[in-house]
Amino acid sequence: MSEAAQTLDGWYVLHDFRTIDWALWKTLSSEERQLALAELNRFLEKLEKTQAEQKGSHALYSIVGQKADIMLMTLRPTMEELNELENEFNKLTIAEFTIPSYSYVSVVELSNYLPSDSDEDPYENPYVRSRLYPILPKSKYICFYPMDKRRQGNDNWYMLPMEERRELMRSHGLIGRKYAGKVKQIISGSVGFDDYEWGVTLFADDVLQFKKLVYEMRFDEVSARYGEFGSFFVGPLLEKEKLPQFFHINE
Amino acid sequence: MSEAAQTLDGWYVLHDFRTIDWALWKTLSSEERQLALAELNRFLEKLEKTQAEQKGSHALYSIVGQKADIMLMTLRPTMEELNELENEFNKLTIAEFTIPSYSYVSVVELSNYLPSDSDEDPYENPYVRSRLYPILPKSKYICFYPMDKRRQGNDNWYMLPMEERRELMRSHGLIGRKYAGKVKQIISGSVGFDDYEWGVTLFADDVLQFKKLVYEMRFDEVSARYGEFGSFFVGPLLEKEKLPQFFHINE
Amino acid sequence: MSEAAQTLDGWYVLHDFRTIDWALWKTLSSEERQLALAELNRFLEKLEKTQAEQKGSHALYSIVGQKADIMLMTLRPTMEELNELENEFNKLTIAEFTIPSYSYVSVVELSNYLPSDSDEDPYENPYVRSRLYPILPKSKYICFYPMDKRRQGNDNWYMLPMEERRELMRSHGLIGRKYAGKVKQIISGSVGFDDYEWGVTLFADDVLQFKKLVYEMRFDEVSARYGEFGSFFVGPLLEKEKLPQFFHINE
Amino acid sequence: MSEAAQTLDGWYVLHDFRTIDWALWKTLSSEERQLALAELNRFLEKLEKTQAEQKGSHALYSIVGQKADIMLMTLRPTMEELNELENEFNKLTIAEFTIPSYSYVSVVELSNYLPSDSDEDPYENPYVRSRLYPILPKSKYICFYPMDKRRQGNDNWYMLPMEERRELMRSHGLIGRKYAGKVKQIISGSVGFDDYEWGVTLFADDVLQFKKLVYEMRFDEVSARYGEFGSFFVGPLLEKEKLPQFFHINE
Amino acid sequence: MSEAAQTLDGWYVLHDFRTIDWALWKTLSSEERQLALAELNRFLEKLEKTQAEQKGSHALYSIVGQKADIMLMTLRPTMEELNELENEFNKLTIAEFTIPSYSYVSVVELSNYLPSDSDEDPYENPYVRSRLYPILPKSKYICFYPMDKRRQGNDNWYMLPMEERRELMRSHGLIGRKYAGKVKQIISGSVGFDDYEWGVTLFADDVLQFKKLVYEMRFDEVSARYGEFGSFFVGPLLEKEKLPQFFHINE
Repeated sequence: MSEAAQTLDGWYVLHDFRTIDWALWKTLSSEERQLALAELNRFLEKLEKTQAEQKGSHALYSIVGQKADIMLMTLRPTMEELNELENEFNKLTIAEFTIPSYSYVSVVELSNYLPSDSDEDPYENPYVRSRLYPILPKSKYICFYPMDKRRQGNDNWYMLPMEERRELMRSHGLIGRKYAGKVKQIISGSVGFDDYEWGVTLFADDVLQFKKLVYEMRFDEVSARYGEFGSFFVGPLLEKEKLPQFFHINE
Repeated sequence: MSEAAQTLDGWYVLHDFRTIDWALWKTLSSEERQLALAELNRFLEKLEKTQAEQKGSHALYSIVGQKADIMLMTLRPTMEELNELENEFNKLTIAEFTIPSYSYVSVVELSNYLPSDSDEDPYENPYVRSRLYPILPKSKYICFYPMDKRRQGNDNWYMLPMEERRELMRSHGLIGRKYAGKVKQIISGSVGFDDYEWGVTLFADDVLQFKKLVYEMRFDEVSARYGEFGSFFVGPLLEKEKLPQFFHINE
Repeated sequence: MSEAAQTLDGWYVLHDFRTIDWALWKTLSSEERQLALAELNRFLEKLEKTQAEQKGSHALYSIVGQKADIMLMTLRPTMEELNELENEFNKLTIAEFTIPSYSYVSVVELSNYLPSDSDEDPYENPYVRSRLYPILPKSKYICFYPMDKRRQGNDNWYMLPMEERRELMRSHGLIGRKYAGKVKQIISGSVGFDDYEWGVTLFADDVLQFKKLVYEMRFDEVSARYGEFGSFFVGPLLEKEKLPQFFHINE
Repeated sequence: MSEAAQTLDGWYVLHDFRTIDWALWKTLSSEERQLALAELNRFLEKLEKTQAEQKGSHALYSIVGQKADIMLMTLRPTMEELNELENEFNKLTIAEFTIPSYSYVSVVELSNYLPSDSDEDPYENPYVRSRLYPILPKSKYICFYPMDKRRQGNDNWYMLPMEERRELMRSHGLIGRKYAGKVKQIISGSVGFDDYEWGVTLFADDVLQFKKLVYEMRFDEVSARYGEFGSFFVGPLLEKEKLPQFFHINE
Repeated sequence: MSEAAQTLDGWYVLHDFRTIDWALWKTLSSEERQLALAELNRFLEKLEKTQAEQKGSHALYSIVGQKADIMLMTLRPTMEELNELENEFNKLTIAEFTIPSYSYVSVVELSNYLPSDSDEDPYENPYVRSRLYPILPKSKYICFYPMDKRRQGNDNWYMLPMEERRELMRSHGLIGRKYAGKVKQIISGSVGFDDYEWGVTLFADDVLQFKKLVYEMRFDEVSARYGEFGSFFVGPLLEKEKLPQFFHINE
């Protein structure tokens, strides 16, 4: 048996993708729509309060193409809280006008393929904490995709010795580092939680950087030989202030 | 032909996953909703009575993410009884407000890759019986996934000699044992019953242990080379006492 | 080119799986439901008459889990008759309360991998006839699954010489024979008719025998290296006498 | 690069599979149903007129099993005409009572793996023309399936030298020829038009010949090593005269 | 790690495929339909104005077969603008009568596998600009399909050295060049944006050229060994002038 990689685990994450049923939304009167949006606003303000208290974080993005129209990403200290938030959203009036299209359950993860320098408890390290319990940036664009490490014939990641995996991950990480300042990346683990092994969430102000980063990585052996990718979702930030416009219907 | 593993088979199991149609549920009056919940309560009390009589067991969990909202797991001595319970649930009022999202049919299974120590009838052994006819724990979280043993090119579990499979399973089992006290595991066989060969149901108070266990196992040859996994479902316990809150709609 | 196996072909078979729309069914009055069931009863009596005249056969089973609620299996001398029966069922009132969930089109098949002992026309042999034109048993449980023989890299059934296939099938058949008296098996061919190459229908009074048989076979090279399996469906007999109870709604 | 096979291309083909929404169809009055069928009749008469003028062809078949209830196959000189016919059908009243279940877009194709004997323009050869612009037979049964030539590891059709492909196709063709008079076969190419590379449409009065032909071919290297098959559809001829009975509802 | 290919990136692209709900469309009065079409017309005129100003481009095509009825392809300088256009379309009356069936998010891409001749900034080169920011032609037919470069066992594009990829792409490009004047091709990259790595959009007046081009390329090693293809969509131009006829309903 190969030695398993150790992980540090932070906040639990739910990516919740929804398609808007515009035809149904239009059947509401302008007043009913405003009431629904006001209720959504209060829900988002509650999330903002939690975030201000550093007890969680969230982001709301619009998604391009038919896979979804919006995506709400929430992070919380326990999976139970995530589930409660999900159920609370499901009971909002606006939820009646959305159709669930995809979701992903995971936990923010740091992988210690890199040797640690000290005996310090990593969960007490401020830098580690800032990455395990991240306040999501207000970047202009988001990109999300789930992925597996391949276990197929001679390309079986989980049969590689720890040393080889460590070396491969290190050179893989160097590519990511080239995009520092351009792309912020959050890796969340989902083994035992959802259908892929990891979720990757990228944030950038220049959407083209997502393509450059993922494409460059694809030529690296970790992705080229061992990466299996699920669906890709991309879209611009949907700020609370933009919601009235986003949901506006001409009459 | 390789020698087939022998199994001990206990109670039949149905995992029944449902998504709640919240928009439809809201169209009911508060009184109608209470009637529906009271009926659901009576159904669950009947299940509890059966469980108290050791004639079966069950568990109700909430599921995180869009794959499902709730999961009812039932165990019974015959598959006919399982089917009757399923049909009884389908006729409840609450069922009209749920959309079937996934299900799994199997039977609790113990595999005797390990040599037996005596001539004793294992079905009379109290320890074996407690595992074949388990009363499900009230753990805070559940995790379910179906799986196959791979039959692909050089990675064909079913072509391995019995001795090799036995040895692989023994070292695989050692990982599971490390999680004793943290994760309770029920394996149910579904060859001939459902689309994968086994269902795995895990119970834990700390949801992170699911991830640790499944991830550690993935580096073991049994999973790394021979495991094929279906969808993963995870979520917190939904106790009967929490149902009014879970189904509550603000008005 | 490898020599193709010769087959004997009997009655055409339709496996018709349906999910019941219980919410819609409940919208009927008790009288309307009784009228629908009486009509279904007359349809089944017509099938029974055909079966009594040895001009076909049929079976109605309940299916466990969400894949389907009921399955009607019909056998007829021509595919046109099958299609007529299917359309007749579709026009019944009860059909309005079912949602098609899966179906399979095939023809009862005997494969002559085993050498024949005489110059006799097999279609005149009473034993062969009883297997090509079988009257379905009233066993307590049914199991159905479609399957292919694999054509993948080095595991390509159709590239094996006839002699090797014959030898493999003979040892495979020995496993089936061990279950004689416990499991009745009907193989139907569907090359050119449906998406897999064969349908396998098993009948048993002890549902566990399905699992034991299919699992034991999986270790045999024919299944281990060459079997590709579709979905598995299992459930108890739904006798005409049980229909009122099965479809009963409390009011 | 391997030399590409040259093709001769004839009429464009649309296979249009539909499921009938019987429950909705029953909500019409008998008069409304007759009006819808009369309109369908006029549409079919228009198709017959085109066919009589040798400007296209068509066939209407019933399909067995749940994949579809009917299939309309239309052939026209241009893809634009096909699209117009499709849209015209979609606007018929009867179309409101059908649910699209599958379709296939292709063009009748002759492949010149066989050497030509002369300098003649093949498009002027009457035999070639009769095959490129075929009037569909009124055979009792139809069978349709799409297929690819495999490109997988060592089984990569497109990497074989032209000579080897030509030889393989020739022996493959010999099987087809054995069924001359029993099965009429139309191959249509769909590279660049639909998801598989070819559509195969078979016509026969004895439905069993489809199974015999496809099964025998599967042992030939072209199918055994290089064939990838999509869904199979089969069913009896649905003559215009049978439509009133086919769509009849008892009241 | 292999050296990653460099790309030039132009306008962002959304391919938006829709199926028309004809039954629902017919429930409108003739006046309501005309109002909906007039609104669609104003939307298209706005797109035309943007195109006239060279700030984007678009095309509207009809799609043959059941995968979709229409496809609107839009190109814009930012992904945010694409998303706004998508949302604007979704709020149109006509959108209520369409069902989303497929979409693709990408960016026009030129790949520099070919060495550059100078130090010039390619983004200032008029020829490059005309290809990165293309005004779509009014060709009679369109063809769209997404594709990946394969990463499978020995057929792993991303593990090939840059020199080998460059050489393979050059000979691949030669095939495309043979179709110059017959087929116009737009390649758009979607790594990090959608589920495949590229979208290919072809324009031609003779629809048969799509088949010839794609089929010829399939014998080239780049496609034969390394191409993985998604769904293919094909159909004739749907000019604004044809919309009244396309959407016309007889009464």
